Amino acid sequence: MTRRVYNFSAGPAAMPEPVLQRAQQELLDWHGRGMSVMEMSHRGADFGSIATKAEADLRALLGIPADYRVLFLQGGALAQNAIVPLNLLPPDGVADYLDTGHWARKSIAEAGKYGRINVAASSADAQYTYVPPQASWRLTREASYVHVTTNETIGGVEYGFIPDTGGVPLVADASSHLLSRPLDVARFGVIYAGAQKNIGPAGLTLVIVRADLTGRARRECPSVFDYAVQAQTGSMFNTPATFGIYLAGLTFEWLLAQGGLAAIERANIAKAQALYAEIDRTGFYSNPVRPSDRSRMNVPFFLRDTRLDAAFLEGAEARGLSQLKGHRAVGGMRASIYNAMPLAGVLALVDWMREFERGHG
Amino acid sequence: MTRRVYNFSAGPAAMPEPVLQRAQQELLDWHGRGMSVMEMSHRGADFGSIATKAEADLRALLGIPADYRVLFLQGGALAQNAIVPLNLLPPDGVADYLDTGHWARKSIAEAGKYGRINVAASSADAQYTYVPPQASWRLTREASYVHVTTNETIGGVEYGFIPDTGGVPLVADASSHLLSRPLDVARFGVIYAGAQKNIGPAGLTLVIVRADLTGRARRECPSVFDYAVQAQTGSMFNTPATFGIYLAGLTFEWLLAQGGLAAIERANIAKAQALYAEIDRTGFYSNPVRPSDRSRMNVPFFLRDTRLDAAFLEGAEARGLSQLKGHRAVGGMRASIYNAMPLAGVLALVDWMREFERGHG
Repeated sequence: MTRRVYNFSAGPAAMPEPVLQRAQQELLDWHGRGMSVMEMSHRGADFGSIATKAEADLRALLGIPADYRVLFLQGGALAQNAIVPLNLLPPDGVADYLDTGHWARKSIAEAGKYGRINVAASSADAQYTYVPPQASWRLTREASYVHVTTNETIGGVEYGFIPDTGGVPLVADASSHLLSRPLDVARFGVIYAGAQKNIGPAGLTLVIVRADLTGRARRECPSVFDYAVQAQTGSMFNTPATFGIYLAGLTFEWLLAQGGLAAIERANIAKAQALYAEIDRTGFYSNPVRPSDRSRMNVPFFLRDTRLDAAFLEGAEARGLSQLKGHRAVGGMRASIYNAMPLAGVLALVDWMREFERGHG
Repeated sequence: MTRRVYNFSAGPAAMPEPVLQRAQQELLDWHGRGMSVMEMSHRGADFGSIATKAEADLRALLGIPADYRVLFLQGGALAQNAIVPLNLLPPDGVADYLDTGHWARKSIAEAGKYGRINVAASSADAQYTYVPPQASWRLTREASYVHVTTNETIGGVEYGFIPDTGGVPLVADASSHLLSRPLDVARFGVIYAGAQKNIGPAGLTLVIVRADLTGRARRECPSVFDYAVQAQTGSMFNTPATFGIYLAGLTFEWLLAQGGLAAIERANIAKAQALYAEIDRTGFYSNPVRPSDRSRMNVPFFLRDTRLDAAFLEGAEARGLSQLKGHRAVGGMRASIYNAMPLAGVLALVDWMREFERGHG
């Protein structure tokens, strides 16, 4: 018997159950071909049709303009932290970075290996509990790009606006909220995301890049990570993560069947509102993020009495509410409620929070 | 009904059916946890146990000495073509490369971006149909390493010996024959392999590196590809390709159950002998590689009359012998007969070759 829990992992994270069921059915025999998708040549017609449909469905979901390239790469967002400057930052150039938390800091540290980095604004003064308003940013006129981390998976801080960077390309690490809401791709130069939140399994990395920003890679950029090389070869300069692309494609199909990104955004808003309302209800739980900047995807919360954390987590696990432990850097709890988390899962968590408060309040 | 063909793809390639069956059973619910391996935090105890067992089983299979690190990375062998020099070649250094075919040439081209490359020997003079004997190699005394491609997937040429490079580290791209035979790992500095032949799904890259060769990475090496960084973090500096590691682990278990690498080598020898014997039997088919250097894994073969290629391939497909078309660079046919290909599959191909010859001889 297959038992399924409500899985609040920050990533690798829960995937839509219909996607996993379909993958399970097809695992040894895709469409009567007598082989798994994992066993197909990436250059054959069958896998070609899978990859082509995945890209087309993603373009439909996000409304990606024709002059943007969609790349299915490997290495995750942390690899992109190096690959972005290797593609866009000349050795004597400067790039602006926004410092909004754990992942922004990692991006800044890695980019520093490749050129001069200007931290245009930081919310370190308030333990990364808000997004610095754009009026406070000190941007560099000659910057090669401006880098933002549009959802901080650990801090639970999400941009509610798209920054205006004039003619300077805007680069976003959108790993943990891409596809959770509509997005005006045309406002960005590069959008990248590790797949393991809302896209597919870990090991696949999505890069959406404006065509005119390809072809600038530094000589020391590995060819497999040169945006121009991969754009010219349809992400097949090397063997891509084929099974990951297949699962991403099934996820895109599932999103379209849900009604697309406007529909999933409505569901995500309802889930986040239900959870934050419970956190704010009495003061027994708390979340430190400025309300306007709270993430809809990653919801860290804390017990007033942290000695109760273990009991809360144990009781949650017993009720099929799994992987709620907070990141080791901040402690407490964290509920990641990506697209695949149904409202019923959030309501089950809210029920447990109320029950636990009644028992310990 | 699940139908399975004999799949001769060069990669992504056939996987052992028991591995796929186990993955299918566990796809929505691993060991009663109510979630897929794909949905687990890579830092949790459950995935930790999967990764630890995969490494231990690999160490048992290959007899990897304790002073070697096992890394599960991303990007495939083509990424390693850059990552190896980024880790081992100082900007003013020199590395020796052996030029034995398509993949060696790719390695040489990529490494040339990072330093001076000396081609120590080449078999280009005979269309890459042999491995230059070591007596002919012109090695550089002060080389940072010597790079070999120990099985050429397209040319079908395999090293039958481990070169002696004295104190200079030997680096091997062993993508398409690693785990097909016992290997004396201690003779190498670095062994790397894309997973999609004998290890697991595309998107996972295995690197086995002697500990003293970590910690030399150049500043411009992305942190996720710095051997020292990944060795220190158990390949979890970033989120690894978790499902790929799980499938690799199942494949290692399967290999151990077959009797390990000595047993699989005996099976692979029997398969290769049966196929080459048929190719050589009458001259209707041919393989251009020097017999001593013929690959046990990748067997290119050609019809005397290439106008019959399409008919041969069509008939093969109709008999459930799939993905036999040769690489576009060389044409003809190629049968990749990795560990997961049973002898029965090779004998079915031999039967079809005889039948086709009777019909067209």
